[in-house]
Amino acid sequence: MNVDLSNVLEERVDGGLTRDKVAESGADEVDVPENVARLPERTDAGEIAEAGARLAERFDAFVNIGIGGSSLGGATVVDALAPDAPVYFVDNVDPDALARLLDSVPLRDTVFSVVSKSGRTAETVANYAVVRDALREAGVEPSENTVVTTGEASPLRDADTRATFTFADVPGRYSALSTVGLLPAAFAGVDVESVVRGGEDGAVERDAGVLDDAGRALGATNHLLGEGGVRASVMMPYAERLETFADWYVQIWAESLGKDGTGQTPVRAVGATDQHSLLQLLVDGPGDKLVTFVDPGGSEDGFVVEDEGYLNGVSLDELRSAELDATRASLVRDDVPNVRVELDGVTPEEVGELLYTYEIATVVAGRLAGVNPFDQPGVEWGKRAARGALGDDSCAEEREVVGSVKETLLRV
Amino acid sequence: MNVDLSNVLEERVDGGLTRDKVAESGADEVDVPENVARLPERTDAGEIAEAGARLAERFDAFVNIGIGGSSLGGATVVDALAPDAPVYFVDNVDPDALARLLDSVPLRDTVFSVVSKSGRTAETVANYAVVRDALREAGVEPSENTVVTTGEASPLRDADTRATFTFADVPGRYSALSTVGLLPAAFAGVDVESVVRGGEDGAVERDAGVLDDAGRALGATNHLLGEGGVRASVMMPYAERLETFADWYVQIWAESLGKDGTGQTPVRAVGATDQHSLLQLLVDGPGDKLVTFVDPGGSEDGFVVEDEGYLNGVSLDELRSAELDATRASLVRDDVPNVRVELDGVTPEEVGELLYTYEIATVVAGRLAGVNPFDQPGVEWGKRAARGALGDDSCAEEREVVGSVKETLLRV
Repeated sequence: MNVDLSNVLEERVDGGLTRDKVAESGADEVDVPENVARLPERTDAGEIAEAGARLAERFDAFVNIGIGGSSLGGATVVDALAPDAPVYFVDNVDPDALARLLDSVPLRDTVFSVVSKSGRTAETVANYAVVRDALREAGVEPSENTVVTTGEASPLRDADTRATFTFADVPGRYSALSTVGLLPAAFAGVDVESVVRGGEDGAVERDAGVLDDAGRALGATNHLLGEGGVRASVMMPYAERLETFADWYVQIWAESLGKDGTGQTPVRAVGATDQHSLLQLLVDGPGDKLVTFVDPGGSEDGFVVEDEGYLNGVSLDELRSAELDATRASLVRDDVPNVRVELDGVTPEEVGELLYTYEIATVVAGRLAGVNPFDQPGVEWGKRAARGALGDDSCAEEREVVGSVKETLLRV
Repeated sequence: MNVDLSNVLEERVDGGLTRDKVAESGADEVDVPENVARLPERTDAGEIAEAGARLAERFDAFVNIGIGGSSLGGATVVDALAPDAPVYFVDNVDPDALARLLDSVPLRDTVFSVVSKSGRTAETVANYAVVRDALREAGVEPSENTVVTTGEASPLRDADTRATFTFADVPGRYSALSTVGLLPAAFAGVDVESVVRGGEDGAVERDAGVLDDAGRALGATNHLLGEGGVRASVMMPYAERLETFADWYVQIWAESLGKDGTGQTPVRAVGATDQHSLLQLLVDGPGDKLVTFVDPGGSEDGFVVEDEGYLNGVSLDELRSAELDATRASLVRDDVPNVRVELDGVTPEEVGELLYTYEIATVVAGRLAGVNPFDQPGVEWGKRAARGALGDDSCAEEREVVGSVKETLLRV
């Protein structure tokens, strides 16, 4: 994996950066805590691979029940590396979607993996309760078809299950390279040891300069461009397998950096598709965006177009590559800074390194902005308000606020 | 369908609007051209329903080959109303994704619907050429398994196909309520006549005031809040079936309004999931956002949680509803304006009205901002540049620019 920062430099775009500015951003001095920085080396990938393989021997389908950081890491790895595997993610409260999923999997031969660090996440607890009922109705003893990944102090520890794994000692959104993010992929047969090794490859010696450390360089670049007026950060992989990576990025970026009145708006996109959607805005709209392309590297499918004018003899991969080059050039023409993350294929190692690198970038961007990239104080009130609205009297004060804005003042 | 604008008013949020300001925005005087405003009544939904049914008699799967406005309308209607139907959308240049799709459908019994207004869209032409080859290799005469929807002057008119439909006389992104957006759904058995009728219901008499016309009121609200500093517009349906609607919104909003240095950044989200992703940023980040919730209305699945503390006896639908109320209240507390679009279920009529309403809102917001909501000048250069990069000498000048930014100046 390499990161091409050419198109954020002032040689290329008005208002761009200099190498010195990136190098002297202070990104090299940011202290990334060990629990995040060393997660890959602390993860026992062999054990996760084995656990996944054992489940795959017994079960035909895998359903992950978790939300936010307890879902997106796993979904990213599976969608990138085993997109057709019978692995599903219940990451919402949506009775219709859950009913359709439960109708479509073979309940008796499906393992449900419940993931929640606190063990108290309302959506996850509720979905798990519904699944338990469905299993019982199907004549299956729930504990036989359930595994849990949860924190040390979680009430889910007491649940009767086939196996209980410990949630890594990191905030959920930084947990992709642990059991949380890797068990679904291990079930799907992905080489999770290589994913973790890729993460380790992303770790750089502490005394490396910013320009030798992709994570720190990206964190510094985003931060500096933000100081220069960039308010939206578009993540645009040119591969459908990496669409979920863009969702993962949105989560880690928004929840880690959106605080104290600051934080770029992360936007997910996918190329070439969104050349026909967002690109008009990126090129001609307000000059307040950074676009990050992820170039998946060549594909070997080798479809070649025939009998179509200038497209004659062109492979789909060449077309994709030409479109990416053209889009980058078109942004440069309009002084929109853009980054290209270059993968050497969508492989386990590259996906691991990509995830790790953006975890480091997020921490660095947060520290440079002076915010805490590990908390999420803004969502706690709403969680209590929902509890209150559902009758929990310990949240009566929040319930009252919800009630006070329920009256409709203007309806069209 | 109703639109609750309570939480954009100054009674609720600092910097909010007044009823008078919305009413006197000039939105009622915006001239929405007949081709867009009257599209539902001009669409012969009965004919589309019949064409879809005929195809469904002969074929087991339906693959739409189109990109941007030639894909998202159809995908929105199918995902909302027939999410499990064997209908697929090839809307990218991704050899890996295309290979997986072609491997998974029964080629002989799959109809390919090629959609391109100009008939020259590079991605669509290339994908169609690859599909033609795959059909021939499978011993199928391509014309037997292909239908086309294209404009009057398109070279695709000459293609040998099972049927050719005429692309409605609107820009692609406004074509959801025509053959473009409805043929896939008709194949899936969706009641497309009701979808179109829903669109007609969204049309309001010309002399209605802004506060009696949901589309104009929404267009005015977005525009006025934009003048007041809103730079990002988050579309957050609380139903997975409506996730693709959020993608559709991103496209119509970005491509119609992102020009002349203006235009809000549209952001797609889905509730409750993204309470664990974007919400932190929305609540605690820069105060430059409008959030639009789409409330799908009650579900009848009736899952009820048992044995889980305060969640005891709560249905998933009540939990979803409580979370939506709590999220709205939490935004109001932090002075983030928000709108609730209220559907009476995810039904054909409501989906039709939702799409139509946001088409009108887009046109109105564009006219109030003084931009042309029907063109997309910013993407034309990139299209020529890609042609040039692939060897089309009529685009040699653009090719040179692409070449000039290809050199890597800084790689990490």
